[in-house]
Amino acid sequence: MTVRGRLFGLGVGPGDPELITLKAVRLLKAAPVVAYFVAKGKKGNAFGIIETHLDEAQERLPLVYPVTTETLAPPLSYETVIADFYDTAAEIIAGHLDAGRDVAVICEGDPFFYGSYMYLHDRLASRFEAEVVPGVCSMLGGTATLGVPLVYRNQTLSVLSGVLSEHELKRRLADADAAVVMKLGRNFDKVRRVLCELGLEQRALYVERATMTNQRIVPLAEVDPMASPYFSLLVVPGEKWRG
Amino acid sequence: MTVRGRLFGLGVGPGDPELITLKAVRLLKAAPVVAYFVAKGKKGNAFGIIETHLDEAQERLPLVYPVTTETLAPPLSYETVIADFYDTAAEIIAGHLDAGRDVAVICEGDPFFYGSYMYLHDRLASRFEAEVVPGVCSMLGGTATLGVPLVYRNQTLSVLSGVLSEHELKRRLADADAAVVMKLGRNFDKVRRVLCELGLEQRALYVERATMTNQRIVPLAEVDPMASPYFSLLVVPGEKWRG
Repeated sequence: MTVRGRLFGLGVGPGDPELITLKAVRLLKAAPVVAYFVAKGKKGNAFGIIETHLDEAQERLPLVYPVTTETLAPPLSYETVIADFYDTAAEIIAGHLDAGRDVAVICEGDPFFYGSYMYLHDRLASRFEAEVVPGVCSMLGGTATLGVPLVYRNQTLSVLSGVLSEHELKRRLADADAAVVMKLGRNFDKVRRVLCELGLEQRALYVERATMTNQRIVPLAEVDPMASPYFSLLVVPGEKWRG
Repeated sequence: MTVRGRLFGLGVGPGDPELITLKAVRLLKAAPVVAYFVAKGKKGNAFGIIETHLDEAQERLPLVYPVTTETLAPPLSYETVIADFYDTAAEIIAGHLDAGRDVAVICEGDPFFYGSYMYLHDRLASRFEAEVVPGVCSMLGGTATLGVPLVYRNQTLSVLSGVLSEHELKRRLADADAAVVMKLGRNFDKVRRVLCELGLEQRALYVERATMTNQRIVPLAEVDPMASPYFSLLVVPGEKWRG
């Protein structure tokens, strides 16, 4: 009987290839199959981070997203298209695992912190042995790049998606000691407006593609809302505690 | 004129020595002085993580906490004693930097995520060149160990301190899509009571010293509130999104 393969979700960090852990590198090098999510026609950020660690014998398994925006013509919806895609991707990986091959799924940042790996894990972890290696998340790559402490002592941190409504963003930002807003992109203008309404525009810091070679720190007032990329972050650091 | 040294805040991850990044290892090996916070009479968790990477020529600089609890006899207070301690520690480090020696301060988890390094950074980063290397934070070490995705898609994550009042914990937990409660220790019983009042006791997961050799996952109902260590976490994962 074939011993079944193991599934690994490997966090590879926020972008700088040096921000991968020793453990992720070790498991990556040992994996016969290396899978990664990627947009159509792209190489993939996660793959770019780890490429130099692979040798030719390792199988590359790109999992190519069928959609990249959430707008589709009816009767298609993002939810059903993406669910089908994850179902298919999980079955391809299950095929390797059933054949006894370990599969390492590489994930930007951390696998369990807003990562697509979670959708594979939810489909496969009950059927196969699965291990997740945590990674440096984009949020902490961002605060390190900005050089600003995020949360002190007993402060509360709220991590928010820029997709939330203006009302919800305002309510939650007003109630947070420290906050990070992810998934800006087309939501940037709305989020900046809310920060200004709350008088937080002086405290908020903005960074694009933190720790990647093309990272950029831009003063909040100077950000072009039409050009804010998906990999951008707003940070409202906690008030300094003298300590 | 002597070129002044540089200050590095190096995240060394949540406990497993393999969960350090390549960048932290490189900068650690290159640093003539390696500083770390430690309780009196202890070796220090952070130091234990990185010890094997050091050679004999590197100076070890333990920064020994004068207090380990927040209870002191008046007129002493935790706040003033600890502030004086950080002032002194910063000046010792400044002495090395002024003499042209780089100093690497090693930090469990991530330096800017509730780390003591922040108090040195606030005192020194305006006077010296300072760089922070982000690390895998304890929160994500915890979710990886528990094998549970933390936040899906556009969910909100609230990171809370167990020190918060019962009222405040209840209000914030009731309003969170996903939550992590840190700094449990003596606060465990209060936090568990709040989770039960909110009907979250089935969803909440508990782990002690995640990724360390003595890590322990314990069902919530079975945790001894008198024995919950500082390095323990409660995780209320976000509701699964089918994706």
